Amino acid sequence: MASNDASLSVGRGFDSVSSLPDALHVGQEEGFDFVCTPIVDPIAPSKYQGDLAAGLNAVDESFAQSDTILSHAEWSRFIVAAISDWINVDSKDPYLQRLSSEALQRELRWAIHLGVPCIMLPLASPDVVRLANTIAPFVSSSRMTQFWVRAPLVARELINSQPDEQQRLLLARSDADRPLYSSWEWWNQLRRLLAPCLRFNVALELTSDICDENGLLQWEAEPIKALIVPTSIFLTNSKGNPVLSKAHQALFLRFMRLNPQVVVVGDAAEGQTHNIYLRYLHFLFSKRAPPSTYQSFTKGYEDYIEIPLQPLMDNLESQTYETFEKDPIKYVQYQKAVEKALLDRIPESEAENTTAVVMVVGAGRGPLVQRTLDAAAEVGRQVRVYAVEKNPNAVITLKHRKRTEWADRVTVVSQDMRRWQAPEQADILVSELLGSWGDNELSPECLDGAQRFLKPDGISIPEEYTSYLVPVAAHRVHTDLSGHTLPKALETPYVVLLHNHVLLAPEIKPLFKFSHPNPECSNPDGPDNQRYMTVAFKASHSGLMHGFAGYFDSKLYGDVYISIHPETHTPDMFSWFPMFIPLKNPVYLRQGETVKAHVWRKADQHKVWYEWCITSPQVSDIHNLGGEHYFVGL
Amino acid sequence: MASNDASLSVGRGFDSVSSLPDALHVGQEEGFDFVCTPIVDPIAPSKYQGDLAAGLNAVDESFAQSDTILSHAEWSRFIVAAISDWINVDSKDPYLQRLSSEALQRELRWAIHLGVPCIMLPLASPDVVRLANTIAPFVSSSRMTQFWVRAPLVARELINSQPDEQQRLLLARSDADRPLYSSWEWWNQLRRLLAPCLRFNVALELTSDICDENGLLQWEAEPIKALIVPTSIFLTNSKGNPVLSKAHQALFLRFMRLNPQVVVVGDAAEGQTHNIYLRYLHFLFSKRAPPSTYQSFTKGYEDYIEIPLQPLMDNLESQTYETFEKDPIKYVQYQKAVEKALLDRIPESEAENTTAVVMVVGAGRGPLVQRTLDAAAEVGRQVRVYAVEKNPNAVITLKHRKRTEWADRVTVVSQDMRRWQAPEQADILVSELLGSWGDNELSPECLDGAQRFLKPDGISIPEEYTSYLVPVAAHRVHTDLSGHTLPKALETPYVVLLHNHVLLAPEIKPLFKFSHPNPECSNPDGPDNQRYMTVAFKASHSGLMHGFAGYFDSKLYGDVYISIHPETHTPDMFSWFPMFIPLKNPVYLRQGETVKAHVWRKADQHKVWYEWCITSPQVSDIHNLGGEHYFVGL
Ligand SMILES: C[S@@+](CC[C@H](N)C(=O)[O-])C[C@H]1O[C@@H](n2cnc3c(N)ncnc32)[C@H](O)[C@@H]1O
Ligand SMILES: C[S@@+](CC[C@H](N)C(=O)[O-])C[C@H]1O[C@@H](n2cnc3c(N)ncnc32)[C@H](O)[C@@H]1O
Repeated sequence: MASNDASLSVGRGFDSVSSLPDALHVGQEEGFDFVCTPIVDPIAPSKYQGDLAAGLNAVDESFAQSDTILSHAEWSRFIVAAISDWINVDSKDPYLQRLSSEALQRELRWAIHLGVPCIMLPLASPDVVRLANTIAPFVSSSRMTQFWVRAPLVARELINSQPDEQQRLLLARSDADRPLYSSWEWWNQLRRLLAPCLRFNVALELTSDICDENGLLQWEAEPIKALIVPTSIFLTNSKGNPVLSKAHQALFLRFMRLNPQVVVVGDAAEGQTHNIYLRYLHFLFSKRAPPSTYQSFTKGYEDYIEIPLQPLMDNLESQTYETFEKDPIKYVQYQKAVEKALLDRIPESEAENTTAVVMVVGAGRGPLVQRTLDAAAEVGRQVRVYAVEKNPNAVITLKHRKRTEWADRVTVVSQDMRRWQAPEQADILVSELLGSWGDNELSPECLDGAQRFLKPDGISIPEEYTSYLVPVAAHRVHTDLSGHTLPKALETPYVVLLHNHVLLAPEIKPLFKFSHPNPECSNPDGPDNQRYMTVAFKASHSGLMHGFAGYFDSKLYGDVYISIHPETHTPDMFSWFPMFIPLKNPVYLRQGETVKAHVWRKADQHKVWYEWCITSPQVSDIHNLGGEHYFVGL
Repeated sequence: MASNDASLSVGRGFDSVSSLPDALHVGQEEGFDFVCTPIVDPIAPSKYQGDLAAGLNAVDESFAQSDTILSHAEWSRFIVAAISDWINVDSKDPYLQRLSSEALQRELRWAIHLGVPCIMLPLASPDVVRLANTIAPFVSSSRMTQFWVRAPLVARELINSQPDEQQRLLLARSDADRPLYSSWEWWNQLRRLLAPCLRFNVALELTSDICDENGLLQWEAEPIKALIVPTSIFLTNSKGNPVLSKAHQALFLRFMRLNPQVVVVGDAAEGQTHNIYLRYLHFLFSKRAPPSTYQSFTKGYEDYIEIPLQPLMDNLESQTYETFEKDPIKYVQYQKAVEKALLDRIPESEAENTTAVVMVVGAGRGPLVQRTLDAAAEVGRQVRVYAVEKNPNAVITLKHRKRTEWADRVTVVSQDMRRWQAPEQADILVSELLGSWGDNELSPECLDGAQRFLKPDGISIPEEYTSYLVPVAAHRVHTDLSGHTLPKALETPYVVLLHNHVLLAPEIKPLFKFSHPNPECSNPDGPDNQRYMTVAFKASHSGLMHGFAGYFDSKLYGDVYISIHPETHTPDMFSWFPMFIPLKNPVYLRQGETVKAHVWRKADQHKVWYEWCITSPQVSDIHNLGGEHYFVGL
């Protein structure tokens, strides 16, 4: 049942089965990877209406067959257990409520006893409080079992198709505060009632109606582990074969980005087997757009949580250097910037008898040193290069390159730039000390420290950089972090290639900006790189805000930029993934509400850190107060 | 570099190399899986004897080449970094000590920077305190790197071959308390100085001398992750090819049980390449004895730690029943026992008109029910069977089997045997409620509760069971448990197929014995199943005691037994693995010393638990006092 980017795993859903081994056999014969089926004998509780004892007895006696009808290997690999869909523990009918509660617990116990990999729960109404209460102990105690909450994309349709008095009243009960006809609201309430759990996810059922773009965005932030495709939404093409409408095709492929498994439910068209739907979906899947360069390079990192580097306190490892040296574009941009700076610095007329002093500060294993030499050759200017690096392991490689490649053109300096006594002043300082949030790897502090040996009219590449902020819904990442036992887990910014997420505001807003050379360096007590900013956002649609996404862009020199801001992202540059800045307690945002965010960049003698909070629509704690949970050492 | 039972991973060791890429190439051409080599340019510190600055400078300048000479993929898959063997941070020579300390740290930093999977450290003297102190921060901070401590099997040889004043004094300094010439003692001291770490292991180097059996046993309890085979221990056969002596062959295969990787070191014989040694070792490896039935069934579970079942508080899952129903021998023994009991109970003459009432209490999914019916058929006796089971999920299967197989012959009772009001008295109670330590799954309490409905002269199968105890050295398992953060981790008994372990006493001693029917049941306030025992053991050889191994045997009926006691183990029966009862702090045992163990079985209204401690050769805490960390719920 494992799924990955390259393959599609499709199951066949059964409404009811008289023999599970037969159903499994049929599903496999038709080419399906698994089946999704009730695991109990069908009972019709309404038959016993009014007679609770008889109803409970029916639940008990004709309950299920033996667990030996399949082997453990079969149960655990091929069966998704669908909880009976008549069950409604939130029913207003006390008889049905009681019977449902008994039956649900018994089915869950049985499914867990069988060792099925996944249990599918129906979500058919906005009332989910008792449902949450009943399933919670099962979800938390079963360590391996996955849960899929089966939610319809458009709930209204469900209401029409099941003309139940209670449900018909829903539209009437709905109000702007909680649109009861939105199945996303049902799911949102259910998952918030339960403790965060990576095994508790959504099986989204496509419906013939499709919701508006905001509705789709709401779902795109959710952990959609299965996509249910009913045969009833298929059209028939001229050859008499089932096909999806253009709109449904687009929808299917759009959700495929999240890598769900697929379940085909409903009857096959007259004279067809389900295999034809399976083949159609495989065909559709094969027509996905091929991955971009960026996607190929970053595959496997989606929603993977990394703790930001500590570039000063720790030394980067060989593998880290090797990885970022593979970026196909970052160094191109830097070379362009150095070329422009050299041309501005040394007029053509002086090219012959002027040598520019270029210092690469934080040289790593030397790629910017090489690019500097290349730039000089390209524009016909002479340079004397210093490679300053504080990581002794990287210096070993720099020395080796000097011996074997660069010779006298480069001086290797094994020093922290903030303390180095340079033998001369530089015309150009080249550095790449940027983090995903711009200043978060302490580029400001390091470059301020190096400014001593930059000529007063010298150039810094980069010239400036800015961090950005936007509220985000990212259930998967936040749930993952909630699973960590340390209290600091939700008071730390992370580096994450945010994938299963949605931005909750139309505009990404700038936060902190730093420029070099820094005029404040001449202040009597040096520059102050502390900052405080308030930023307001208007929610573009209702959603659950899990925190903020952070980005940066940087003007390297003149018109040469690098950026990971989604709207100006330097194509194919993969050296930086976004930042995720969590809120301990997710906040429900209504469309149009204002998020008011406060962010601090603070520093003392030994460290730099961020603090953050919101004051609207609710007031949160101030996160990471005093840098208690996360700081960057100076 | 992954190794598994079925394959042998062999590396080639180099003493010094001028080009690492060449060495890797040579090793791969010769068919080796990896190479084990210094990663720094060779320096000869003795050249700078007396001139510390020059020595340190030599360490600095001619240190290493660039990390770019290999790709990260190569570093991380094919290179074991051997720390320079001249390094001796515990040297009495202050100059060599200082130089060694600098060089060792630098080599460790560089190896970790390179991302090699494994670092090999030389262990050449009994003085290891500064070595431990120097490496400790590297071991604890590098999360992925493995460490191999290269220890000679027989240290005396090393002392002879390296005639260094300091080392020649060793034998003189040795005393009975700490035999300094035993390399196991060096390792033992080193690993105890460091925090427990599963990544810190032994590379045992075979020597031409072989130690006595006790010496081999000492090593067999240790985490031997690599076996170093020097070419110098090979003999030359009549065809002029290198072969190992019979004794070395046996030794090699003996240590192969622990699945180490192998490293061939030393020069090849005149006119040979190293490939011939590689082929010889592969050939030898292929001649290992094939796995026994027991080994095939239990493969993959070696040293895997399981928390004992809670048979009363929890319900077993389908998979668990399926697994133990596969035992090829347990049910055969039970059937034999039932046959004998039926024959004893009903004389041939009464076979026609007497029906024995057999109650299978704790019937699970019914295998003992079936065996009871089979036994009756086999010996021509009539039985009326009750299947009593408290797990509602198992009852579903029992009911199904009654419907489809057993019909009127079996009555299924969905009850706890301690509370069931039986409609009649039983002639025979059949149960299997035994844990790895006999009584630890509360068989005594359950069967005492069922005795109400056993006829006064009725038979219980099993009739009796006994638990056993022996002190054990088991570095791997104890280290694994030490890694768990909960304080309870080392105050809980576990179920473990002990593999990389050695028993430290010649005799395994009986502990608690229970018999059924229990005469104490007629006591006014019922039976008392609490126990306290003191047991003494004499250490058969020096070793580090990590706790106790526990076993059980049981007389089912008459002369029919089942046992997991190593000396009487029922062949091929795999339903129970041994128990491991840890000591929080391992205790160093000298050969001949007495271990005095105290074990309690305690109970209150709600639970049963064990407490344990030792009072010789040292006094330990009483573990699990009051059942705080581990108990079995009633
Ligand atoms: C992000 S890496 C960039 C390396 C290389 N310039 C490149 O672009 O591939 C930053 C480098 O700066 C070094 N560095 C950071 N702070 C420094 C400081 N204060 N003095 C010297 N080097 C520093 C780090 O050790 C690291 O090698
Ligand atoms: C180790 S299993 C043995 C099952 C089966 N007899 C066999 O040998 O394969 C023990 C069974 O006893 C049941 N059991 C344990 N204590 C019980 C009790 N007090 N009353 C009824 N059943 C009990 C457990 O639920 C479990 O199914």
